[in-house]
Amino acid sequence: MAQIIDGKVISQEIRLKLNEEVAQFVNAGNPQPHLTAVIVGEDPASEIYVRNKMTACKEVGISSETKRLPATTTEEELLQLIGELNRDDSVSGVLVQLPVPEQINERTICNAVAPEKDVDGFNEINMGRLALDMEGFVPATPLAVKTLLEHCNIETFGRNAVVVGRSKNVSLPLAILMHSDGKNATKALDATVTICHRYTPPKELAIHCRQADIIVVAVGKPGLITKDMVKPGACVIDVGINRIKDEKTGNDKLVGDVDFEEVRQVAGHISPVPGGVGPMTVTMLMYNTLKAAKKAAQNASRKSALV
Amino acid sequence: MAQIIDGKVISQEIRLKLNEEVAQFVNAGNPQPHLTAVIVGEDPASEIYVRNKMTACKEVGISSETKRLPATTTEEELLQLIGELNRDDSVSGVLVQLPVPEQINERTICNAVAPEKDVDGFNEINMGRLALDMEGFVPATPLAVKTLLEHCNIETFGRNAVVVGRSKNVSLPLAILMHSDGKNATKALDATVTICHRYTPPKELAIHCRQADIIVVAVGKPGLITKDMVKPGACVIDVGINRIKDEKTGNDKLVGDVDFEEVRQVAGHISPVPGGVGPMTVTMLMYNTLKAAKKAAQNASRKSALV
Repeated sequence: MAQIIDGKVISQEIRLKLNEEVAQFVNAGNPQPHLTAVIVGEDPASEIYVRNKMTACKEVGISSETKRLPATTTEEELLQLIGELNRDDSVSGVLVQLPVPEQINERTICNAVAPEKDVDGFNEINMGRLALDMEGFVPATPLAVKTLLEHCNIETFGRNAVVVGRSKNVSLPLAILMHSDGKNATKALDATVTICHRYTPPKELAIHCRQADIIVVAVGKPGLITKDMVKPGACVIDVGINRIKDEKTGNDKLVGDVDFEEVRQVAGHISPVPGGVGPMTVTMLMYNTLKAAKKAAQNASRKSALV
Repeated sequence: MAQIIDGKVISQEIRLKLNEEVAQFVNAGNPQPHLTAVIVGEDPASEIYVRNKMTACKEVGISSETKRLPATTTEEELLQLIGELNRDDSVSGVLVQLPVPEQINERTICNAVAPEKDVDGFNEINMGRLALDMEGFVPATPLAVKTLLEHCNIETFGRNAVVVGRSKNVSLPLAILMHSDGKNATKALDATVTICHRYTPPKELAIHCRQADIIVVAVGKPGLITKDMVKPGACVIDVGINRIKDEKTGNDKLVGDVDFEEVRQVAGHISPVPGGVGPMTVTMLMYNTLKAAKKAAQNASRKSALV
């Protein structure tokens, strides 16, 4: 029976450490790290996500603010707000909660957030830096998966990993983090990585998965990964979040992309949904915000040393 | 017996087409596209590479210039030259031949070339755009591999591909181009992609390769890919260039990473070394330079329309 990767517990541990680090940072005379989130329109899911992020900020001692703009906001208005936040020295990190209304180009917005405040890691420059194994901001979800693997001492060096999905904010950055050189700035995981996606024939997906020591799935298809696709002892990380009807109770419930009850019988480690990658993602956003604050403080002291 | 992918012939075809396109572009009243190459120091290999590029420029009707700086050039001096070239409207594309002497940081130099003149595609912004399937410059070698596959009608959609190597200027951009969505701006190839590298155990490398419909190898190890690792009918693209001693003649000769004579007996298609990816790479640099010139002309006419 697989060991459950308890994202809540691990997350709590890391938040405690981050809380200590923030306190040390502030006690050393630095300004309190600050995260500003921007929500455009009134998407209920976005409200929940942002609320969770704000709660996490409180837990680790990061000050935070949510700016709310109406659904009718133009791209120009949003860009202006982002520009102000970029220039505001009291703001360490800026995140624009996605999705944005359709009159606004998501890519333009992601690129408008200053790379050094881009705690979501969605700016094209941070994506480029990640691809080049350079220092920068890595999106929170792939960072969460990497941290869970490391925390559970899952061996990745020279192992076979399969990433199911090819999204730009989760799967691709994760595939980069998993295959790249551990000796470079991103401290990547040196695994052999196979990227499967919607056009991978199901039979081939099963073959690739069965060869994998680590499977990470992030596509949004309940029950996609079944017991017969998992090598005994493999580590299965489930990034999917799907709302389905519980046949027993008739109520909605959250499930991932893995047939959890079946797969846990063969896997060595498995992350549940909810309570796996989700809470860790929010924690990694806190990690990125503290990192942004530390860099800003370094740059400020470098500048004042030059004066 | 495999069909040989003749990079020279395909390259010649494409250069003819590019030559026509350049002529049309110039006849429409646009300035002649221009490529400036910068060599720092006196690396004999760099001299050959740049000479080949300049010859290709002549063939397709792109004007060109090679700037030579002494091996003692400082990073600042090189950055100043790049800055001048970036600002010079008569220059469509800028390439700094790598490697640069050790007192110069290669990454700083690659990032200094203006993204819109970065015909090598090595600027972090172009790397980010490629990762995000956005319009930008793709490095010439991965573009050459993609073009060879397309030219030979090798089916990639939903097929298994293995990329052996994880270099940032060849293997990673190629892995991105091979697995990403064909409907986005980069017109990627929708294959399932496995990235193998130095830490992939040889036994696992063989297993992954044997499952592959397409194998691309770019590591610099003569004889790495052997007959038993190739599925009958698979397409094998060899990006390796290794200088070894010919046992028969005692002279140096160029070979790739594939045991060509053996593998051609099982493969469906195979690219030779020399005469495969090499000439196509230079051709793709010409493609990128014309693209840069076209974009610059568009931007100029957009600007003048605004005046």
